[in-house]
Amino acid sequence: MPFSPDDIAAIQTPAVVIDLDIANENILRFQQYASSHSLRVRPHIKTHKLPALAELQIAAGAIGITCQKISEAEAMAAGSSAIKDILITYNIVGSEKLQHLKALARRVKLTVVADSATVVDGLAAAFRTEAEPLTVMVECDTGANRCGVPTAEAATALALRIHSTPGLVFGGLMTYPPIGATAAVEAFMTEGKRRIEALGIEVPVITSGGTPSMMHAADASVTTEYRPGTYVYNDRSLVARGDCGWENCALSVLATVVSVPTENRAVIDAGSKLLTSDLLGLTGYGHVLGRDDIVIDQLSEEHGRLVSTGPIGLSVGDVVQIVPNHACVVTNMVDTVFVVGNGLRSVEAWPVAARGKIV
Amino acid sequence: MPFSPDDIAAIQTPAVVIDLDIANENILRFQQYASSHSLRVRPHIKTHKLPALAELQIAAGAIGITCQKISEAEAMAAGSSAIKDILITYNIVGSEKLQHLKALARRVKLTVVADSATVVDGLAAAFRTEAEPLTVMVECDTGANRCGVPTAEAATALALRIHSTPGLVFGGLMTYPPIGATAAVEAFMTEGKRRIEALGIEVPVITSGGTPSMMHAADASVTTEYRPGTYVYNDRSLVARGDCGWENCALSVLATVVSVPTENRAVIDAGSKLLTSDLLGLTGYGHVLGRDDIVIDQLSEEHGRLVSTGPIGLSVGDVVQIVPNHACVVTNMVDTVFVVGNGLRSVEAWPVAARGKIV
Repeated sequence: MPFSPDDIAAIQTPAVVIDLDIANENILRFQQYASSHSLRVRPHIKTHKLPALAELQIAAGAIGITCQKISEAEAMAAGSSAIKDILITYNIVGSEKLQHLKALARRVKLTVVADSATVVDGLAAAFRTEAEPLTVMVECDTGANRCGVPTAEAATALALRIHSTPGLVFGGLMTYPPIGATAAVEAFMTEGKRRIEALGIEVPVITSGGTPSMMHAADASVTTEYRPGTYVYNDRSLVARGDCGWENCALSVLATVVSVPTENRAVIDAGSKLLTSDLLGLTGYGHVLGRDDIVIDQLSEEHGRLVSTGPIGLSVGDVVQIVPNHACVVTNMVDTVFVVGNGLRSVEAWPVAARGKIV
Repeated sequence: MPFSPDDIAAIQTPAVVIDLDIANENILRFQQYASSHSLRVRPHIKTHKLPALAELQIAAGAIGITCQKISEAEAMAAGSSAIKDILITYNIVGSEKLQHLKALARRVKLTVVADSATVVDGLAAAFRTEAEPLTVMVECDTGANRCGVPTAEAATALALRIHSTPGLVFGGLMTYPPIGATAAVEAFMTEGKRRIEALGIEVPVITSGGTPSMMHAADASVTTEYRPGTYVYNDRSLVARGDCGWENCALSVLATVVSVPTENRAVIDAGSKLLTSDLLGLTGYGHVLGRDDIVIDQLSEEHGRLVSTGPIGLSVGDVVQIVPNHACVVTNMVDTVFVVGNGLRSVEAWPVAARGKIV
């Protein structure tokens, strides 16, 4: 990686560091796959929360971005004039959020989703008096058992409701499937598209997402658009799945050893307030690069405990580099990330514009 | 609780809300116990990260505060002139952090800890040229297997090193014990005190901490000071242990139902970016007040999934109030908390001054 010893010495730990060259490679790899299969790419920015990274994704060919919350979308739109097309894959509920949605829709091409008549009716009430209608997709549950209508029949009924409602335009079908559910996506979406088109309603977009399944996205041939998030950075969960290697991980955490109380144990200055408690089914809270023998077996808020079956071989003051289990949640813990690569002459501190945007 | 329906309607969800009346009761309850046992109280502010809450704790009788990181201590000191005495229970390592430590020590009465000669020597190098010496305690491992010297003998050797070093003053012994380890604290600290005093060195303070064991703090009679953190808010982990009831929980999360896809499932707009993945040994990610039948069985970043064995009985737009598993980490996720009680005429939004202070 292009971090020099001087770069690392200049960074106060604990810190999140981003290698833009690796991120760029990750962006281009998926864009190439998607383009060769006529899939449009709409990255989910929850992973980086950085307007400048979204600009790299758009420059590579992405048609726009995906956000999860209205405040997140506002922060991204405010951060870059290149961000002109935003899909918020969330049910927007409540009058104040709808006011924000109206304001944002006047600034960018905006699409939202809905999975119930209640959500559709709220959107309609807000947009009835707007000059431009709001594009609304139907969220479909293809097995994740989170949000989404459960059947193609239900998707069709909601599509018809959107289509028939002044102030709204039906935008297509959206799903966030479980890992490996490409066949379920294909079946649900094909049936939904058939039924909706049978009513004389166009289905302009069918969008799916998720990094782990992205290199099989085109197997669901009905899909027109894909929304990967984590792919820009990758993380330990994806390495563990065999989806990438450590050399493809663009985000890592620098931490300093602050205590070596026993021969087999060291404590670092990064705890759950940086690495987070997300396990994603793994053992331990991250991977110490170059040290396969070490397990980060316990986190408290400001301490990470490293244990090894052999001598830990670390001293107070040593800096370790860790690939976290889950990149997206780590980005959300810091106001600033430290960035190298992409022609930057030295390490730069970038504010994480959309951090903490939960509303 | 004193939140009115109007208050709640004015708060955009998801949000962290704080009931200051409950927090005050929690503060006074432990202060009374501690005072009646001649224990000084030095609350850990990691739970609230709010200068105004520290002021309430100091007004109730606390002698100062505890912080974990130098940037956290700086934010608290900057936030209130009532904060004049800070213990940082952390090994401070690295030249830039030591510069910050020197600057802070000129503003407040500052104490830090060390558990190795390397840390002591770093502190000494920084403070050798200062007008006032730095007070340094020895961190002792009484069973938590995190930081700390492992034996009373090792504590004595390090105390002697601090005592003998220009620029430093030995401040006593500090431990963060595992839950229920009062006897281990008593044994370790009594032996350490005996050995250090045998060298003619005074042991002015013996400080322990942790909310779950706090009402037995005085059972370790050698302890002179106690550092509870979570007690100010309480949380689901403490209710589950029988240490308090829901009515003693001052921090809760307001969330809006955004989807009810099946009869037994609802999805709220609070996910791991607010409730966090901290389980603390519990099942589920928080308790929905008034709904013992509901389990928050899955979080993604912006979604929380609520399931019930019976009908979930919630509609899109309903607001639920959740006591999280772990209050301290939830505070760290938000820029602002919404506060009522303590004579405030209406809900107020308070910035979380020490949020995200990991350096």
